[in-house]
Amino acid sequence: MKTLVILSHPDIKESSSQQYLLSSVPEDSDVTLHHLEQLYPDFKINVAKEQALIAAHDRIIFQFPFYWYSSPALLKQWQDEVLTENFAYGKTGQILQGKEFGLVLSVGIPEREYQAGGKEGFSINELTKPFQAMARKTGMSYLRPFTIYQFAYMTEEQKMNVLIEYQLYLSHENETSLASRENWFLEQLGKTNLAASGSADADKLAHIIEIIEENRDTIDDLKLSLEEME
Amino acid sequence: MKTLVILSHPDIKESSSQQYLLSSVPEDSDVTLHHLEQLYPDFKINVAKEQALIAAHDRIIFQFPFYWYSSPALLKQWQDEVLTENFAYGKTGQILQGKEFGLVLSVGIPEREYQAGGKEGFSINELTKPFQAMARKTGMSYLRPFTIYQFAYMTEEQKMNVLIEYQLYLSHENETSLASRENWFLEQLGKTNLAASGSADADKLAHIIEIIEENRDTIDDLKLSLEEME
Repeated sequence: MKTLVILSHPDIKESSSQQYLLSSVPEDSDVTLHHLEQLYPDFKINVAKEQALIAAHDRIIFQFPFYWYSSPALLKQWQDEVLTENFAYGKTGQILQGKEFGLVLSVGIPEREYQAGGKEGFSINELTKPFQAMARKTGMSYLRPFTIYQFAYMTEEQKMNVLIEYQLYLSHENETSLASRENWFLEQLGKTNLAASGSADADKLAHIIEIIEENRDTIDDLKLSLEEME
Repeated sequence: MKTLVILSHPDIKESSSQQYLLSSVPEDSDVTLHHLEQLYPDFKINVAKEQALIAAHDRIIFQFPFYWYSSPALLKQWQDEVLTENFAYGKTGQILQGKEFGLVLSVGIPEREYQAGGKEGFSINELTKPFQAMARKTGMSYLRPFTIYQFAYMTEEQKMNVLIEYQLYLSHENETSLASRENWFLEQLGKTNLAASGSADADKLAHIIEIIEENRDTIDDLKLSLEEME
């Protein structure tokens, strides 16, 4: 499966969360990172090139900071210019049909504020309706969004957890068992850049593998106990 | 009351609905028309100028074609650059507090498709949540949106009706009686550009005044009948 990450961030070098996420994607993987502001700083989008890129991928991800409850302007421009009638929808427009669509959102405000009674008043689910409607109109299946709240305030362990979940979100088959997620992760570890990027990171990875294996042992023990009780 | 219409349309000369609406706003009125694509074709927004403009008005309207269930990109850029922390929200940001906020949307698809079971699947109310959240965060009161569906397919009489409702939306006090709306409209007629723009238009206006006066007579008759019955 090939994944296209359409990344929109006007100031990506200043974003610690984006830098952290991007550093984790191996260059030789099936994931294509595509940063719009870097490619099109003047908002002049190469429509034919973008359309060809979409056609060549199976999962399309919009990754962006959640500015005013939506995407930065350049991603909106991209939608308006690239997702044209008879390409993305309409009688002859079935290029996106059957692909998967996901959102990777970075949000500066705590999750609890995104509900009635909270400071933001609306849920992420409500605020992303325009993207849900876009996926629906173009025939893509809409994945649960991957939302990162207040990355800057996370502990190192929380950040590492975000990284694992992010990699799963980009390239793992949808809706699978815990055991299969674990296997997938253990396989990925060999490929990731992080293993080579310093001993502190390597230590963390070793720690994570340990946790996974401990969890497996615990689950196996629980299953055995259950079988004995029956 | 002073109204600022922030208009975003990348191709306004080709839009019959926008041309029709704009032609109806008198130049000497309390309505300021502000077309972003004309002012900032290169997406470089003069933030200080825009912030001063907002501060000088009581009702802020976003007027745009509903592209991919949201605004064109330049209006999003405007939100992200102009509505900054400590201007539009935050501890010292109360410039918008108490102002009114409205949407004027032109939509190319029939109203009935905007619901579960319809081709678009979501209502305009659901799809405009990001704007509702913006009004909420900045302390503006959110007006019912003014949505124009399939303007190109309307009869002349329907178009004229849209024009009247549009003018009410821009400059009339919110939530008032039918009689007050009629009085307001009759007063506005003297000011409008349309009266001077050709005999066909003048005829239409005369026709509308006639309809309003007939409606009033009917209402008065009904009231009399009711009183007699009591």
